[in-house]
Amino acid sequence: MEATQIRMQDYPGVGPARDVWLLTHDPLRDLADGEVAVALDTISIDPGMSGWITNKRSYMPPVKPSGVMRAFGVGQVTQSRSALFSEGDWVTGFTGVQTHGVYREAALRKIDASLAPPQKFLSGLGMTGYTGFFGMSDIGQPKEGETVVVSAASGAVGSIAAQVAKAAGARVVGIAGGPEKCAYLQSELGLDHAIDYKNCNVGDALANACPDEIDLYFDSVGGETLEAVLGLMKYQGRIVVCGAISQYDDFAGAKGPSNFMSVVTHSLTIRGFTMRDYMHRIPEAIEWLVPAWKDGRLKMREHVVEGIENFPDAYEMIFRGENHGKLLLKVGAPS
Amino acid sequence: MEATQIRMQDYPGVGPARDVWLLTHDPLRDLADGEVAVALDTISIDPGMSGWITNKRSYMPPVKPSGVMRAFGVGQVTQSRSALFSEGDWVTGFTGVQTHGVYREAALRKIDASLAPPQKFLSGLGMTGYTGFFGMSDIGQPKEGETVVVSAASGAVGSIAAQVAKAAGARVVGIAGGPEKCAYLQSELGLDHAIDYKNCNVGDALANACPDEIDLYFDSVGGETLEAVLGLMKYQGRIVVCGAISQYDDFAGAKGPSNFMSVVTHSLTIRGFTMRDYMHRIPEAIEWLVPAWKDGRLKMREHVVEGIENFPDAYEMIFRGENHGKLLLKVGAPS
Repeated sequence: MEATQIRMQDYPGVGPARDVWLLTHDPLRDLADGEVAVALDTISIDPGMSGWITNKRSYMPPVKPSGVMRAFGVGQVTQSRSALFSEGDWVTGFTGVQTHGVYREAALRKIDASLAPPQKFLSGLGMTGYTGFFGMSDIGQPKEGETVVVSAASGAVGSIAAQVAKAAGARVVGIAGGPEKCAYLQSELGLDHAIDYKNCNVGDALANACPDEIDLYFDSVGGETLEAVLGLMKYQGRIVVCGAISQYDDFAGAKGPSNFMSVVTHSLTIRGFTMRDYMHRIPEAIEWLVPAWKDGRLKMREHVVEGIENFPDAYEMIFRGENHGKLLLKVGAPS
Repeated sequence: MEATQIRMQDYPGVGPARDVWLLTHDPLRDLADGEVAVALDTISIDPGMSGWITNKRSYMPPVKPSGVMRAFGVGQVTQSRSALFSEGDWVTGFTGVQTHGVYREAALRKIDASLAPPQKFLSGLGMTGYTGFFGMSDIGQPKEGETVVVSAASGAVGSIAAQVAKAAGARVVGIAGGPEKCAYLQSELGLDHAIDYKNCNVGDALANACPDEIDLYFDSVGGETLEAVLGLMKYQGRIVVCGAISQYDDFAGAKGPSNFMSVVTHSLTIRGFTMRDYMHRIPEAIEWLVPAWKDGRLKMREHVVEGIENFPDAYEMIFRGENHGKLLLKVGAPS
């Protein structure tokens, strides 16, 4: 059977370059013992992908030239030589950007499609949701009445983080780009204040929105926003860093905050993390997220691009901030 | 009675400028109730002073133009209208750079001059010693067998931090400038490895000295050393930041580490602090430091400049790293 893949031809220079990507059609190989064939339904498009196609030391090895592009995906088992999986099971894992794939059983996790539509397991009920959940609840530990600032607050990670802080009783200020996203933060997510970084001076807007300074900042953008926040942090404040999307496309020239000394003068704690720190605790996230979503207390939205051939567009879209909600690529047959 | 003071005329521009300082001779004012007159013996010269003469938001308000320059000092009470202090008591506190001063009783703390020579209470048994002690033991929490890197390791703070890590059983790599300081790190402080940042590539030297990467970095210099260390940190490593001497003279142009993203990719924790976080716990530091020093297990050395008129030289010396040991200014009569 023929499958379709997106491969990375070679490492891009600085910035995403379209000629990095190659659409190929290779037959699916036969299964060995302990392997499973999966028809993919949906692929997750994440800012972290730019790190995976950067040939330098990071939290996981980069994609190899000519290799299928790494991605999370969900799909259904079509054939199994594993005792752990049966035909029809819904699974997730690092499936790569492809329509069909063969995987070792250890590379996949079953998902319970009776809980929610499968694509939710790539959104609020998936890695990005878990990232927002653990980053805010376990590292950030927001307390009632604290002022919490969340950047990229309408995004896949930030929207969950912001809602977790709200649920803890914090006063939450969200930063997002454009009036539509800011309206969403206030009317849908119920945040206390929304700052449109595309249409104001973020430092001034933050100072207005946080007259008592900032107890906790959930950072997934870095850059100038981090600098603005550093100047407004409360004594012994906390900063959780889960990425720096504003600088992903320019790793080599990424800058640290010029007012880094605030870390000393204000006795700040900065903690970085990725989901690899929490893989063993995923059930805790599901236990909180699923009922909150079912009750309507937790909002999550997805922005779905159709067709594997549109991967290069979707990849660029996320760095331009054009998606509204978790960006997904539907690669399976329309359902 | 006439006293002699060093005053800050006005805020300097970038970098220490000699015309910032003014030597004045003003009579000592009469004591009000609850006040104490002190003849100062020794003044502490600290890198943090540059922050105190920078007119921007920091952990304490800057010195006011024409005001006596802020400094820690030790001296002896010559007159008291406080029930808490008697003539002859040794005291310490923010005394300012002057030969004599009048202070409110709340601004002073008694020191026990029977434990050690008074100047030690500005060195290893004073604020810098406490800073090294709490920063390493309470924040850093080194464990047996861990690789710990200490910058400015021959300095007043770093030398205590390094010895606390050694006492905890860690493998300690010290960074200092020049062969004399590096010899001191190994022969006197017993560190496992010393790196002379003035005579090698720090990144290469660190990579050689830390083949298993770095568990814990005690940073008091920032700048390029912090960048080099960030590239070598172990997964979930810790960084304690207690200052950034390499950038104190250029606050406006201070840079954050360009590889700040390592905080995310390696799940690092960065914690900044100053002694104000630990003022209530000083007795714990004394309890550990005094017996360790008396037994000879803990080494501390001072570099004493004589004469209040030499304050401007001493102030510049610390930013050039020319002092060997805690830099002190003797302002009292020769003892």
